[in-house]
Amino acid sequence: MPDTLYDVAILGSGPGGLQAAIHASRKKAKVLMLGRIDNSSLFWAHVENYCCQIMISGEEILKTGRMQAESFGAEFRDEDVLAIEPDGKLFSIKLESGDMIKAKAIILATGSSRNKLKVPGEKDLLGKGVSYCVDCDAGFYRNEVVAVAGCRSAAAGGAVALTNFASEVHLYCKELDIAKGLREQLDTTGVIVREGIQITEIKGKNAVESVLLDDGSTQSVAGVFIELGAKGVLELTAMLGVQLDENMKYIEADKKQQTNVTGVYAAGDICGPPLQMAKAVGEGCVAGIEAATYAKKLELD
Amino acid sequence: MPDTLYDVAILGSGPGGLQAAIHASRKKAKVLMLGRIDNSSLFWAHVENYCCQIMISGEEILKTGRMQAESFGAEFRDEDVLAIEPDGKLFSIKLESGDMIKAKAIILATGSSRNKLKVPGEKDLLGKGVSYCVDCDAGFYRNEVVAVAGCRSAAAGGAVALTNFASEVHLYCKELDIAKGLREQLDTTGVIVREGIQITEIKGKNAVESVLLDDGSTQSVAGVFIELGAKGVLELTAMLGVQLDENMKYIEADKKQQTNVTGVYAAGDICGPPLQMAKAVGEGCVAGIEAATYAKKLELD
Ligand SMILES: Cc1cc2nc3c(=O)[nH]c(=O)nc-3n(C[C@H](O)[C@H](O)[C@H](O)COP(=O)(O)OP(=O)(O)OC[C@H]3O[C@@H](n4cnc5c(N)ncnc54)[C@H](O)[C@@H]3O)c2cc1C
Ligand SMILES: Cc1cc2nc3c(=O)[nH]c(=O)nc-3n(C[C@H](O)[C@H](O)[C@H](O)COP(=O)(O)OP(=O)(O)OC[C@H]3O[C@@H](n4cnc5c(N)ncnc54)[C@H](O)[C@@H]3O)c2cc1C
Repeated sequence: MPDTLYDVAILGSGPGGLQAAIHASRKKAKVLMLGRIDNSSLFWAHVENYCCQIMISGEEILKTGRMQAESFGAEFRDEDVLAIEPDGKLFSIKLESGDMIKAKAIILATGSSRNKLKVPGEKDLLGKGVSYCVDCDAGFYRNEVVAVAGCRSAAAGGAVALTNFASEVHLYCKELDIAKGLREQLDTTGVIVREGIQITEIKGKNAVESVLLDDGSTQSVAGVFIELGAKGVLELTAMLGVQLDENMKYIEADKKQQTNVTGVYAAGDICGPPLQMAKAVGEGCVAGIEAATYAKKLELD
Repeated sequence: MPDTLYDVAILGSGPGGLQAAIHASRKKAKVLMLGRIDNSSLFWAHVENYCCQIMISGEEILKTGRMQAESFGAEFRDEDVLAIEPDGKLFSIKLESGDMIKAKAIILATGSSRNKLKVPGEKDLLGKGVSYCVDCDAGFYRNEVVAVAGCRSAAAGGAVALTNFASEVHLYCKELDIAKGLREQLDTTGVIVREGIQITEIKGKNAVESVLLDDGSTQSVAGVFIELGAKGVLELTAMLGVQLDENMKYIEADKKQQTNVTGVYAAGDICGPPLQMAKAVGEGCVAGIEAATYAKKLELD
């Protein structure tokens, strides 16, 4: 199979990548979307805070977005990228299937996978009481008992925020590692801090019912928030020499969503917080327009 | 009536303001949305490029978004702001009705009104063939004849882009004022440049049918794109000392959507191109979270 040349290759088909595909293909760029829709953070989510749709499942959002992008001419391949290499003014992209494609411009929209607790029940109950995002899901636990796992500011801050909704918030953590002010907020807001105790299993049939703890006891809860920070950014970006932020966690992009590497753009969670669909879509719109414009100009050289 | 104090007052209830209201009120901030929904640029639009909804009317989007924001506790007042003044650490806001409110933080999301051609038919046929946005509406004119009005790069670039869709593109303009490269693109893409000739009237019953020209002739068209650039930013922002970009057209905001004035944030079209709903929503999300966080911290001082 001969190499196929695209104007814009988009790594990722979450909301950031989909919106980029919509805007780039409406600029008449030849666009390829890559990645698996069911690997998007949104796939198992129920979204109620995205303007202007009252409540919709992540799966439905993603399937609709893909259809929409395809209706404007974008192509889609349901596979991951294994490697990217600069190739003159172009980029060579190696796919899971072994196929190679070339692109004039690249948009990195591969999201940010959350660190996992790695206990039984975590994966099965994801979206059924297990969450990695207090900002997203706190509202579903009005007057319920919830657990938070984590030792840093993300977990402690999340626990404090949850007290606005939940009737009881238990924070499980080996050893808290947070600033004094936040420690005080835990106390004044009534978070039950279970320092030294860790969750060993999340239990429940169709929804979370309880957590098993490493002291042998069980706590009934309706929700478990896992706030262990986000994972580091892909090796892929290192191959390209793309610059990361000072914590080496997210990609540095300017207001046009351009990275330090000419022809490489980024959008969505991979660019850092807030890790929210609305922000991913906004950045995707800008990245799509900019990448398409760049690719079209390259043609004229 | 006593002054009412809000954490966050949002000027504008287009998509930028609505998304900001959703995110700020989910952070438990006391939020007031201001402005008229039917003054949003989107009100008469039909949107097909916003992830992930196939095709939806602007009016429906805005009404749903308002309901959604209200469901999280945001309040709404259907009136414009006449003046804003700093008031210690707070802001005093004067409304159309004469009422005064106070807020800890402000989000400017008042959009960007397009310059009008000011000819008969323009207003009546808005959204029925008259458009101010090639990027948004070009796709509706496949194999149709369209007119573009304007003399600068926005108009000429728009005319070139339209040749991807329309069968014939007529560009009307007193005197073209564009770079040589763009001039050449007009020729190579086959735009019919009618320099020296201007549109004096847009005709049509339920949809655009033709334009009347100042040489007395008539041209049949299905669409008229008015690309005269965007109006200058509100006097309101001047009162606050908010910094504009170098062309004095848009507000300068950083990646957190913060302006140079502490406590004042901005989102959407008012921050500059691309003037697209997706971008407005992304910036609104960030501004809403940041403004709410700022207002909550102010409380503790
Ligand atoms: C449980 C949960 C609930 C959430 N609820 C909400 C909510 O209610 N509201 C909200 O606004 N946000 C919510 N979020 C956050 C939201 O899902 C993210 O902000 C959003 O999905 C980010 O979009 P993205 O396009 O940047 O990345 P993602 O949606 O994560 O998509 C990443 C894409 O990249 C692809 N990919 C990864 N590696 C590669 C590779 N090597 N090659 C090619 N493709 C690759 C993946 O397959 C996937 O398609 C929630 C998140 C979680 C986990
Ligand atoms: C005909 C048309 C078609 C379009 N089609 C599309 C499309 O298909 N896809 C797309 O993505 N974009 C489209 N756009 C662009 C889109 O409408 C804008 O990008 C979007 O509405 C910007 O949102 P905003 O919140 O920044 O401003 P707006 O939506 O313009 O909202 C501004 C708000 O500010 C309020 N306001 C103004 N002055 C004051 C004041 N002094 N006090 C209080 N409130 C005030 C107004 O009443 C209004 O509520 C279209 C635009 C037009 C004109």
